Amino acid sequence: MEYSIRAANVEDCRDIARMITELAEYEKVAEHVKVTQKDLEQDGFSKNPFFHGIIAEVPEQHKTKEGHTKIGYALYFYSYSSWKGRAIYMEDLYVMPEFRGKGIGKALMSKVAQLGLAAGCNQLNFTVLDWNKSSLDFYLSQGCFDVTADMGYHCMRCEGEALQHLAQP
Amino acid sequence: MEYSIRAANVEDCRDIARMITELAEYEKVAEHVKVTQKDLEQDGFSKNPFFHGIIAEVPEQHKTKEGHTKIGYALYFYSYSSWKGRAIYMEDLYVMPEFRGKGIGKALMSKVAQLGLAAGCNQLNFTVLDWNKSSLDFYLSQGCFDVTADMGYHCMRCEGEALQHLAQP
Repeated sequence: MEYSIRAANVEDCRDIARMITELAEYEKVAEHVKVTQKDLEQDGFSKNPFFHGIIAEVPEQHKTKEGHTKIGYALYFYSYSSWKGRAIYMEDLYVMPEFRGKGIGKALMSKVAQLGLAAGCNQLNFTVLDWNKSSLDFYLSQGCFDVTADMGYHCMRCEGEALQHLAQP
Repeated sequence: MEYSIRAANVEDCRDIARMITELAEYEKVAEHVKVTQKDLEQDGFSKNPFFHGIIAEVPEQHKTKEGHTKIGYALYFYSYSSWKGRAIYMEDLYVMPEFRGKGIGKALMSKVAQLGLAAGCNQLNFTVLDWNKSSLDFYLSQGCFDVTADMGYHCMRCEGEALQHLAQP
């Protein structure tokens, strides 16, 4: 199937917000999503953006029954490893279910890798849910490795009242 | 003990590089460290830096027997959660062994939390090694939670030849 991969712009935030919710529903955590279209517009498309995006788009003749032509996305930002230096972090990678199995997810991830290498990054980092075996298998087939399983690193988080409390001098 | 916490500047990179190696030795992975003082100078202190740093410093009279007064650091960068929005990521948190137990690590982490909140961040994220029980206990005591254990997220990575290969269109 014909599709294109391109940098996201501020007009894509409505579809990105829709697909973030779809991905969260797939991950069974839709109630955790607090980000709105307006947040995405402000945080990704103003000076010093907190993230960047990539969109996968199909031509009009392949639009979904709801009329969507923007059918996949990836979000990423630049990060740093104190061992290996410049790194890129892929926050999300999503393709709508009816467009899977056509190489679109691979093409989005490949674009993130290209952007990372172009910026001098030595690593592409991301997370996967341990029950999401099809995604894990895909990533492993691409030569990625499981840093948690292989090296013992756990993701940790502080938020809400705990974060407010931690910030008290 | 008297100490100060301040933003890192380019003159701190020599000591940051030294402490990155000390931390990696503690984590038993010193052979993985490829980052040099020059990398830190370029990547953290030029336009569009990949990270920011904080230094813990003691007065001359408390310097180590090797003459060090910069005795702890944290590295951080801004990131993004597609659920919760703006986030801050703490890449490293380190205090030299002879200065531990004095609240310096807590003060460094508190500063990262302050900077995150000031920038509108809703989360502070980081990783911990599963065998590093004293660090894990400290983080849990601060109200942090283990995203890997509680929600099943695994850290994944692509680097080296696999990253080059992934970037092929």
